[in-house]
Amino acid sequence: MGLFTKDIKTLNDLFVHTLRDIYYAEQQIMKNLPDMIEKASDRALKKGFETHLAETKNQIMRLERVFKMHGVEAKGVNCPAIDGILEEASDVAGDVDDKTVLDAALIAAAQAVEHYEITRYGSLIAWAKRLGRNDCAAVLQETLDEEKATDKKLNDMAVSGVNQRAA
Amino acid sequence: MGLFTKDIKTLNDLFVHTLRDIYYAEQQIMKNLPDMIEKASDRALKKGFETHLAETKNQIMRLERVFKMHGVEAKGVNCPAIDGILEEASDVAGDVDDKTVLDAALIAAAQAVEHYEITRYGSLIAWAKRLGRNDCAAVLQETLDEEKATDKKLNDMAVSGVNQRAA
Repeated sequence: MGLFTKDIKTLNDLFVHTLRDIYYAEQQIMKNLPDMIEKASDRALKKGFETHLAETKNQIMRLERVFKMHGVEAKGVNCPAIDGILEEASDVAGDVDDKTVLDAALIAAAQAVEHYEITRYGSLIAWAKRLGRNDCAAVLQETLDEEKATDKKLNDMAVSGVNQRAA
Repeated sequence: MGLFTKDIKTLNDLFVHTLRDIYYAEQQIMKNLPDMIEKASDRALKKGFETHLAETKNQIMRLERVFKMHGVEAKGVNCPAIDGILEEASDVAGDVDDKTVLDAALIAAAQAVEHYEITRYGSLIAWAKRLGRNDCAAVLQETLDEEKATDKKLNDMAVSGVNQRAA
């Protein structure tokens, strides 16, 4: 969207803008996950990140399907939110001097990413339904369900073992 | 935390760092809410943001109580995540050229903020319990419950009326 222009005139414009926001965000997440996989020590956590990398690639393809269904170009827009969340994740990880504490920090960072995705997909699904695009909403819902499951898995890992080893 | 130093050596350090992260974040949210109140057209939404401003001030005081209980200085640290989320909220709001669509965008922006807080308080509570600070966890839980309730209220407002008017 352009500076000093007001390009979002309808709910459909807002929907397309936010699709492009999360499309950019998913790509940044995909680029950052290999670094998180490398930094994780806990085997289950490492494996969890690997699974999420595969899921993220699939979620990007799902977004491309939604762009196509909705008849708009698949492209990203600048997303300062995910840039900030990932910058903070990298800053904090770089400050941690113990591998079990680093695992706890990585889980928290990954959960911040998940929650960003959960909120964006939630809005997108509500708007898609309101716009009469139940077909798009159904595809986006598949991703939302995956993100919620990933957040829950991360939570279980934190509570069941990673935090305990870090303490 | 310093550049090129690894200042987080224990789970307690990570807990204190993240307390300071959310302390800074709450202050930025407090500074940004008046602008969101001004931009909102829907009366229930405007009132919802006003209520949340009062809650945020209380949440900041609660954090100061936790700092004191835990015997560490109440201060903020740089939090690129909330800076990015708020920058994106402001960018998108500035791009919207219709007041009902703006309300839908404001709700989505506020929900992104809530989800950031939900994830951070969730991690803080898990770590506080693991560190044997159930007293701190209980205070932080009060805020987490408020944030979840706010997110749900925003969701209900979006689904029940704001998105419909925007469509």
